Amino acid sequence: MSASKTVRKLQVVSPVPADIDIANSVEPLHISEIAEELNLSPKHYDLYGKFKAKVLLSVIDELEGSTDGYYVVVGGITPTPLGEGKSTTTVGLCQALGAFLDKKVVTCLRQPSQGPTFGIKGGAAGGGYSQVIPMDEFNLHLTGDIHAITAANNLLAAAIDTRIFHESTQTDKALLNRLCPPSKEGKRSFSDIMFRRLKKLGISKKQPEDLTAQEIKKFARLDIDPDSITWRRVMDVNDRFLRKITVGQGPEEKGMVRETGFDISVASEIMAVLALTTSLADMRERLGKMVIGNSKAGDPITADDLGVGGALTVLMKDAINPTLMQTLEGTPVLVHAGPFANIAHGNSSIVADKIALKQVGPGGFVVTEAGFGADIGTEKFMNIKCRYSGLTPQCAVIVATIRALKMHGGGPEVVAGRSLDRAYLTENVSLVEAGCVNLARHISNTKAYGVNVVVAVNMFSTDSEVELNAVRNAALAAGAFDAVVCTHHAHGGKGAIAKNETPIWDSRDPDIVLLYSQIFAALGLGSVLLDGFLFAGPFLFADLGFVDLGIAVQKACENVTQKLKFLYPLDTSIKEKIEAIANSYGASGVEYSEQAEKQIEMYSKQGFSTLPICMAKTQYSFSHEPSKKGAPTGFSLPIRDVRASIGAGFIYPLVGTMSTMPGLPTRPCFYDIDLDTTTGRVIGLS
Amino acid sequence: MSASKTVRKLQVVSPVPADIDIANSVEPLHISEIAEELNLSPKHYDLYGKFKAKVLLSVIDELEGSTDGYYVVVGGITPTPLGEGKSTTTVGLCQALGAFLDKKVVTCLRQPSQGPTFGIKGGAAGGGYSQVIPMDEFNLHLTGDIHAITAANNLLAAAIDTRIFHESTQTDKALLNRLCPPSKEGKRSFSDIMFRRLKKLGISKKQPEDLTAQEIKKFARLDIDPDSITWRRVMDVNDRFLRKITVGQGPEEKGMVRETGFDISVASEIMAVLALTTSLADMRERLGKMVIGNSKAGDPITADDLGVGGALTVLMKDAINPTLMQTLEGTPVLVHAGPFANIAHGNSSIVADKIALKQVGPGGFVVTEAGFGADIGTEKFMNIKCRYSGLTPQCAVIVATIRALKMHGGGPEVVAGRSLDRAYLTENVSLVEAGCVNLARHISNTKAYGVNVVVAVNMFSTDSEVELNAVRNAALAAGAFDAVVCTHHAHGGKGAIAKNETPIWDSRDPDIVLLYSQIFAALGLGSVLLDGFLFAGPFLFADLGFVDLGIAVQKACENVTQKLKFLYPLDTSIKEKIEAIANSYGASGVEYSEQAEKQIEMYSKQGFSTLPICMAKTQYSFSHEPSKKGAPTGFSLPIRDVRASIGAGFIYPLVGTMSTMPGLPTRPCFYDIDLDTTTGRVIGLS
Repeated sequence: MSASKTVRKLQVVSPVPADIDIANSVEPLHISEIAEELNLSPKHYDLYGKFKAKVLLSVIDELEGSTDGYYVVVGGITPTPLGEGKSTTTVGLCQALGAFLDKKVVTCLRQPSQGPTFGIKGGAAGGGYSQVIPMDEFNLHLTGDIHAITAANNLLAAAIDTRIFHESTQTDKALLNRLCPPSKEGKRSFSDIMFRRLKKLGISKKQPEDLTAQEIKKFARLDIDPDSITWRRVMDVNDRFLRKITVGQGPEEKGMVRETGFDISVASEIMAVLALTTSLADMRERLGKMVIGNSKAGDPITADDLGVGGALTVLMKDAINPTLMQTLEGTPVLVHAGPFANIAHGNSSIVADKIALKQVGPGGFVVTEAGFGADIGTEKFMNIKCRYSGLTPQCAVIVATIRALKMHGGGPEVVAGRSLDRAYLTENVSLVEAGCVNLARHISNTKAYGVNVVVAVNMFSTDSEVELNAVRNAALAAGAFDAVVCTHHAHGGKGAIAKNETPIWDSRDPDIVLLYSQIFAALGLGSVLLDGFLFAGPFLFADLGFVDLGIAVQKACENVTQKLKFLYPLDTSIKEKIEAIANSYGASGVEYSEQAEKQIEMYSKQGFSTLPICMAKTQYSFSHEPSKKGAPTGFSLPIRDVRASIGAGFIYPLVGTMSTMPGLPTRPCFYDIDLDTTTGRVIGLS
Repeated sequence: MSASKTVRKLQVVSPVPADIDIANSVEPLHISEIAEELNLSPKHYDLYGKFKAKVLLSVIDELEGSTDGYYVVVGGITPTPLGEGKSTTTVGLCQALGAFLDKKVVTCLRQPSQGPTFGIKGGAAGGGYSQVIPMDEFNLHLTGDIHAITAANNLLAAAIDTRIFHESTQTDKALLNRLCPPSKEGKRSFSDIMFRRLKKLGISKKQPEDLTAQEIKKFARLDIDPDSITWRRVMDVNDRFLRKITVGQGPEEKGMVRETGFDISVASEIMAVLALTTSLADMRERLGKMVIGNSKAGDPITADDLGVGGALTVLMKDAINPTLMQTLEGTPVLVHAGPFANIAHGNSSIVADKIALKQVGPGGFVVTEAGFGADIGTEKFMNIKCRYSGLTPQCAVIVATIRALKMHGGGPEVVAGRSLDRAYLTENVSLVEAGCVNLARHISNTKAYGVNVVVAVNMFSTDSEVELNAVRNAALAAGAFDAVVCTHHAHGGKGAIAKNETPIWDSRDPDIVLLYSQIFAALGLGSVLLDGFLFAGPFLFADLGFVDLGIAVQKACENVTQKLKFLYPLDTSIKEKIEAIANSYGASGVEYSEQAEKQIEMYSKQGFSTLPICMAKTQYSFSHEPSKKGAPTGFSLPIRDVRASIGAGFIYPLVGTMSTMPGLPTRPCFYDIDLDTTTGRVIGLS
């Protein structure tokens, strides 16, 4: 079928086995084979074991000037807590494009957090026959990027408290002497990083002994206001007891206690820097200018003021290289940056997308995932990520499920770990139709960026044809370029079991029916068109259901008529930008807390008002209230607080109460996870 | 000179440049070349970039039955806070054995903690022309082992607090139902890990519904006593403000606050497990049986009771494979486990040593480093590590410096970051002679294990020949097999600059003089014997000063006359074992705090009294008081508390007050560290 040497034919089993069992049933190719298919030579990457490689940034420079491929972003409708299969659809789409439609394709995914892997959600490598492998390596450690972020974030945190402590016990002169110790020859000097602070202070002197008393004070005493510190420690573990803590209670810290807390590592500003940076030099500058709080006089204090921007860069120097992996069907995947688009921006990295776009070249496809609903991940993809990268997407995919649409139509609450209500397991067209208002708003919001929108309905075995048709109709009516039913779980479907054959949905297009027949023939399988469905069996490639999606995405990319438009210009006030986004949520207005007003005023005064906005908002509703499903209107959006990620480059309003550290349930996923010490294989990971 | 293809000739420069500059001046060999020299095929290792590889444990099984090489442990005298060059000597000795004496050799080092790298001490790759390279990769992240330990340690910590929280809000029955949720078919079952707890409780039932109310309570309610929790969180950062904290202050945690703290990651019991484990299966069992505290009834609660032992193993599955690197001269290094022998056991791993001993084979050498003075690292190496590994060392090297001996002889205090007193920079034979009591006790203590002791004097340019001879004489008088002056800084010496030639110390043996002359001839250099010194110049191989040490170590290994003897048998009481160690420190007795008495009683009752002892004691004195230099006697050793690392396999008395989390100074090392973003090279790391 494909010209690619690495594409692999899957033999699928029904019912679909556990994800880890499918992942373990396929022997991955050595990653150097995947790299070779992408025209990467060994000098372009570093191996991390046999199945992972870090692709070096130098690739971007080498391909400077060559033409990019098509750029596709995958978002979703407002999800249930179970997730709607966005990663699975992203992987399945790429398997279809690469393994069946013979396109050059790279999937750009985010590295999962180990918090959810051991907590409630489990892994994030996709599912069923649409996965990144080896899925245990994808879900655990990977190539250490999140660990590097944790280390860098916490080194900066330690530097803050320790600096306040040392300043509290030393005179200006003693501080200067400690900061600039004498060399063996007895000469004091500034280190390179100190010249950054001196420059910021407008001091052009080159020697510590030339500073006046006033200048010594300005230079050596950061005078950090403890109450202004926004920098928190992080950990890649769901540890709810660290949400709010008091530090400094040891006797040596002399009563310098302070209330603070830990966030999950992927919420660190350093993760956002990693996702949005464009080069090593750019990352160095961004890390150095991260603001951790203010001096008592109200001046922003940066990582470089603390002398640690260089060390943070050194800790992150390998993390800037994206990790190459593969799908079950042997197509390439670049894994980079992190999830949690609700409390962060939750997009994979600019550098990974850039490398991928150059590697696939004209006619090729890069499919990049944005977190949660299109109000969250896709909005930030467009207004933050594309703004910094200068890249233009042609197509946005919106993943929907009948389950989530029923919820938006008024179905009972969906809770992780509890059985689904009957409404979700039997046909209920009116619930689906009512819920399509959510899909429709995501479509029109996304279309407004000037891209073509393709809706991918991630089909479950309990979905009926009438329900699926209702979604297609609603999507097309709302302006979608196309709407396609995807069947990555096709082989678990009731109909298939009954007939020992597998229905392929969505045979509206005679060309596609012909293509499918040809695919089946090439596989040595007969096929038959019956009641509007094309059947083949009993064994099929896993992602035939995505071939149709692949074709729709290809057409969407080839038929772009508009230019990329942002939701708001940068040169308006912070409030105007927030209000533009709130408007897209359906809000009739915005309410600012006193604290939010104060912060907006301060950041505006500090010159940060031209940054884009990264809303921290629940992923479970367009509004700030998770219970408001569908497409709510007329509500007022409360802004509880506003923070700034100056290094990453955005202002960060907190909409209502958002937890930045998940917790563990009574029975976390880890109960099932173990190592088969004979084979060395991971078991129980899902 | 050497049959090895990977040995590389160094061109040394005088004065000795900064460590990072020397490290950067040599292009490392691809690590696959080093692996090949060790007869490792690509299936035996996983690459991590071009210069690091993880050697897979399967190598041990494959070489089962083959004969080991010689086993050498490097310890030291009681050090100054500046360190006495133990890593440098270890590396230099191996460069001498491998690159000059043509022996198969592997250096086994511990992975440095990033805390000191960015704090006061700087890196730990050795120094001058005796280093592991690339030194930045050695000092930062390496292959992620410490990050894996941090992740595993903190997952367990999160599991503890969350479990207490969930137990406090649920009935026994509700707990059981949450722990054993129904399958899709509505059937509840135990997960595999739960059978471990059921077995421990003596419950043989297979189904949750068969449990009686009493059994449900016993099984589902761990009833952890918060005051008994010894498991702390960890971070690989010098963050003193985390030494003592209060957690659980968020509103969702409903007032369940608790005082606890963070240790530096390398102090985690999981690090000790990594160092002492012998296989994946053994590690799984050790991680599962780690005790985190007691139930209110006084029963030990383990990681497996919390359901997390399997997940911890999965997090550690790659960390169990040691990392292969290389010295400046192209000899192989295995890096594994961690430092901080004062608060941990601070030895490199058993699996790394085992792999190395098989790889070098008969006549080859494995040189493994033990932390700090021989009272700390070497004692734990013998009584804990060798006991678990069954391996027998032939030779123990004790590294000494004139500087530290002068301090022990009554010299002024040595403080990191301050200029050295004149006493340390000019000849003072009587101070040296007085200080040799410290060396003598380390020699006699170490000899008592039945190994030959070789003293390596790490020479500085300020040392005089008379001082050096005083040490040699004292060492031989105390029973050392040999005592050798090592000159890794030879080329910075005043004499060398004056004469534009380099003196080689210790030419007592005509054979060695001949050997040196031959080496120089092979290098195309003339040499001359003058005033008892052999000179060649101006350019020399860097570690000629170690060749002599290599010969001494070889002879020591070939002339072992005794069997390995432990300091104490395991089948005596915890107190008897502590007292045997205290006796070796010179203590006349031991004082136990009330808390220590209580813990010893409890651990004895719980059946843990047959474990070996891992003392947490200052590295700056044989006694508990850092200021007591030399060889103190007649003091009473205070045991403040006793803890147990049941998974690692030792009882852990705290001698006096020991900090388990270092702090940052006013001007940490990180001020000098940055990335050259043009070349991608790290600068300022020392």
